[in-house]
Amino acid sequence: MNKSEEDPGSKYFDSDVTDRERAIFEGAITLGALYHQFVGTPIRDKGALETAIEESALAHPFIKGAKAKVDDSGERGDSPYQYPELSGKGLIIELEAEYNESRAKLGMRRVQGLDYPLMYIKEIRG
Amino acid sequence: MNKSEEDPGSKYFDSDVTDRERAIFEGAITLGALYHQFVGTPIRDKGALETAIEESALAHPFIKGAKAKVDDSGERGDSPYQYPELSGKGLIIELEAEYNESRAKLGMRRVQGLDYPLMYIKEIRG
Amino acid sequence: MNKSEEDPGSKYFDSDVTDRERAIFEGAITLGALYHQFVGTPIRDKGALETAIEESALAHPFIKGAKAKVDDSGERGDSPYQYPELSGKGLIIELEAEYNESRAKLGMRRVQGLDYPLMYIKEIRG
Amino acid sequence: MNKSEEDPGSKYFDSDVTDRERAIFEGAITLGALYHQFVGTPIRDKGALETAIEESALAHPFIKGAKAKVDDSGERGDSPYQYPELSGKGLIIELEAEYNESRAKLGMRRVQGLDYPLMYIKEIRG
Repeated sequence: MNKSEEDPGSKYFDSDVTDRERAIFEGAITLGALYHQFVGTPIRDKGALETAIEESALAHPFIKGAKAKVDDSGERGDSPYQYPELSGKGLIIELEAEYNESRAKLGMRRVQGLDYPLMYIKEIRG
Repeated sequence: MNKSEEDPGSKYFDSDVTDRERAIFEGAITLGALYHQFVGTPIRDKGALETAIEESALAHPFIKGAKAKVDDSGERGDSPYQYPELSGKGLIIELEAEYNESRAKLGMRRVQGLDYPLMYIKEIRG
Repeated sequence: MNKSEEDPGSKYFDSDVTDRERAIFEGAITLGALYHQFVGTPIRDKGALETAIEESALAHPFIKGAKAKVDDSGERGDSPYQYPELSGKGLIIELEAEYNESRAKLGMRRVQGLDYPLMYIKEIRG
Repeated sequence: MNKSEEDPGSKYFDSDVTDRERAIFEGAITLGALYHQFVGTPIRDKGALETAIEESALAHPFIKGAKAKVDDSGERGDSPYQYPELSGKGLIIELEAEYNESRAKLGMRRVQGLDYPLMYIKEIRG
């Protein structure tokens, strides 16, 4: 791993950490961050919320791609109090993290047979 | 106060509560909600974040107008780790809440002489 | 209203705002804040989370009492991924806000017949 | 990697992912989650907040140890509006994540010479 000036934080990492592991590390932080930053947000314009989530993801270090999809189908009602809020089950995220030559594709979605959102590593290269 | 079918929650309120007080109540909930939902969000596209905040505000009951302004000037750095995050001091919000004939204009901003963001009632009518 | 040195923010408020309205305003901000700060928190020790919510509430200005009750019954599962998270429907809050001689009791809970958490003013005095 | 019944999510991961990488992945999600769940929380009793953060960390899958330290020294003032809030710079976290025989120690703290909180992998074994 090239611990260059470009990454002033690298000296704090176990020197045994590989580039693959760094790509996974950075992507996973972002998955956890997005979930806990945005879950609970009242939804009115789902496109605006998706864009804000994607831009927030891309502000994180080493994140090179981000796609968010929000499900706003739930819980809209007749009363003014009843409006959809972003839930973990209603959020799909795809991320790409890159560290030197390593690239990780990570995702979050509710998978069939599991009644909760799963965060996973879709692909790791390099 | 007209405790109509339009507000199925009203029967849970102290019957002494006025329409003015309801307008203030609903607006203030939204101020607190926006602050604690969005503070900490990494900022890359401040326009996208402002739109998401405004749309989230308008999803709340009885909120008729919302304007958000995000300050992204802070803490961008040379290293990939250093990026601006939304802070309370870097967020300006203006809201209008309406309940029957009463209308409250509320705001949040860092006022001169106070080194913290203040939430306040700018105007109450009706 | 006594706009004393004790409240350096009061000069930014519409001079028409009453003490009752201020008590409601401060309490409502706190309700919105607690909801959007803590919803989504993974639950392992509900007592610890309830205490943290109550202490956070009491840090807000003019809040004199706070009680939180967390429902952790949902969604614990056989797999390591399945654990309860704080949802709006699983959170009960009672607050007391005081401004000069006025005192507001506010609450949040899921009321019968409404499939969502309602924030309401239980009692306003003074 | 033993893709046993104990981990029903593992089949969604790239089969190339190692146990070390899984330990890092799970720990990193939790770091990001804690940061964005709790930053912004008003602080009154820092011990209660630390406990809530640690318990929330331990609710995440594969997290075997968690320690949080909150800095509440900032911004307490004479006015009722001025109270400390949890900032990223004022939060120290240490986590241990375990997946099969692999164990990762991860941390977050503000390191000397960097004016922002750094998340890092302190040690990876197995």
